[in-house]
Amino acid sequence: MDDIDIAGLEAERDSLLAKARTILVAALGEGEIPEMGVTPVIRHDGDMFIYPSRLSAHVRAMLEAGKAACLVIEDEEVAQNIWARKRIKFDSELIEINRNSSLFNVVCDGFESRHGPTMGLIRDFTDFHLLRLRPTGGVMVLGFARAYRLVGPGLAVTAHLRQS
Amino acid sequence: MDDIDIAGLEAERDSLLAKARTILVAALGEGEIPEMGVTPVIRHDGDMFIYPSRLSAHVRAMLEAGKAACLVIEDEEVAQNIWARKRIKFDSELIEINRNSSLFNVVCDGFESRHGPTMGLIRDFTDFHLLRLRPTGGVMVLGFARAYRLVGPGLAVTAHLRQS
Repeated sequence: MDDIDIAGLEAERDSLLAKARTILVAALGEGEIPEMGVTPVIRHDGDMFIYPSRLSAHVRAMLEAGKAACLVIEDEEVAQNIWARKRIKFDSELIEINRNSSLFNVVCDGFESRHGPTMGLIRDFTDFHLLRLRPTGGVMVLGFARAYRLVGPGLAVTAHLRQS
Repeated sequence: MDDIDIAGLEAERDSLLAKARTILVAALGEGEIPEMGVTPVIRHDGDMFIYPSRLSAHVRAMLEAGKAACLVIEDEEVAQNIWARKRIKFDSELIEINRNSSLFNVVCDGFESRHGPTMGLIRDFTDFHLLRLRPTGGVMVLGFARAYRLVGPGLAVTAHLRQS
């Protein structure tokens, strides 16, 4: 393993995750090209949650597969170099949260606090599914030649990568 | 077909494509979860071009498949409603542009004009591949209940969709 500043890198990881208001997702659908989409995300007790609608093809694909590729990425506007937008890419399992659970209500309240009144409109729509992400691992890119391996559900920084 | 303002919608499509500095891509790799990434994009003569490196897994997957899912999306910061970020999603074939062609040089110059001096550093790196996108169709989302079908290489707006 390279000699890397784990604590500093994990602080950068947490900053990227905390700033992100949405997450990009991709899953295998029925065709040869993946289904891709975007959806608001919140963090609650250290976990990430999304609340997408199965009316979108990528959501049906995610629900069917039970897993997805996920990407959190800084806005173009704030990127120091457009060739190296800061980002965290990870594979994730998806755990559905039952509508009748207390967690469902707590997390929906969290969405409303973080992302505004739209949640009130869609909270009772049963085509939406509350999903907890359980990352399995990924890569964080902070710039040129600054890619790092992320491991496990906590996305622990473990190594500097030559490739991403 | 709904009664939609094709000219106005295609102007919105062109505006989104013109503003975008990067494009998100996803392709089937060897695993059950797609490979996803981001790369700068330029438009030249009405076509979109990207210049990604095969050191990234998603680029190897794209090159192997010869096609990818693509997403152009406005920044979070400018989204009127974070639940409905304006975006254009499309499937695309990928056509490689030979390094020895005059088009390669013209498009590389275009990247340098649009995205700065980084192109000068990577222009001769043979792990990068210049690819022209040839869209086959997709969806444009401009807000809630404002999703439109896009058809063919020109992403012509043809219909209002109930689902996206």
